[in-house]
Amino acid sequence: MTDNALWLDDIGVGDRFTTGTYELTAEAIVAFASDWDPQPFHLAEDTAQGTFFQGLAASGWQTAAITMRLLVTSGLPLATGIIGASIDLTWPTPTRPGDRLHVELEVTAVRRSTSDPSRGFITTAYDTLNQHGDIRQHATGRLLAFTKPA
Amino acid sequence: MTDNALWLDDIGVGDRFTTGTYELTAEAIVAFASDWDPQPFHLAEDTAQGTFFQGLAASGWQTAAITMRLLVTSGLPLATGIIGASIDLTWPTPTRPGDRLHVELEVTAVRRSTSDPSRGFITTAYDTLNQHGDIRQHATGRLLAFTKPA
Repeated sequence: MTDNALWLDDIGVGDRFTTGTYELTAEAIVAFASDWDPQPFHLAEDTAQGTFFQGLAASGWQTAAITMRLLVTSGLPLATGIIGASIDLTWPTPTRPGDRLHVELEVTAVRRSTSDPSRGFITTAYDTLNQHGDIRQHATGRLLAFTKPA
Repeated sequence: MTDNALWLDDIGVGDRFTTGTYELTAEAIVAFASDWDPQPFHLAEDTAQGTFFQGLAASGWQTAAITMRLLVTSGLPLATGIIGASIDLTWPTPTRPGDRLHVELEVTAVRRSTSDPSRGFITTAYDTLNQHGDIRQHATGRLLAFTKPA
């Protein structure tokens, strides 16, 4: 845990965090899809033509995974880690080869547990955007956080 | 597309689908986390001790990815593929090494688009369970589907 790690008490409504970037290649889209989401529109440019996506698109789960990687490595330095209790996801536009993605997160609620005041939930709203500002994923997540031990 | 592929018209409320199984190893947990969710409780048994998870646990995003793989390869044979519009996820218990996971899905709503009756949304509720019946993920997903072309 680094010295600038954040505890529950350090987080307030309206706090904003912006991550670094992750560049997505066609090869990485196909590799992820081969493992986790082997559908024609995620596996090759030619089989993606003629589908709903009209060209190669990343699995939404890859966009979600990239988002998590960005938050963990450069976004939200929670002292006890990023532990999601529940997440709601939408993918307004498909993630495409060549996208350079980053995440913008805002804290929308902070609530301490009444039964155990050493822990609480942080509600966050976060968008994953490409270099043109296209929103590839919108998420709302309830994260578990803890107060600093005495 | 196989002959038994399902179109929007073929799907009804209450339809149920059960997938095959996926066995998760500690090595696979660490490999996924190294790429997408590099946090102590997902990376090694020893660094996971003393954390909230009290032992190695899979990234929730890996549970989500395994769920998608199971649905795509053995679960829900939609003719135009599984295209998620929005998904709500919770992880009631951590996914652990040795879990043999499968998915049970139920269709809870089917609604045809009023503006374009050739398409519609299927709402699905699905659980990802291990061999002991522990629910590792609960999800509600709105999926885009199409009527069979004339």
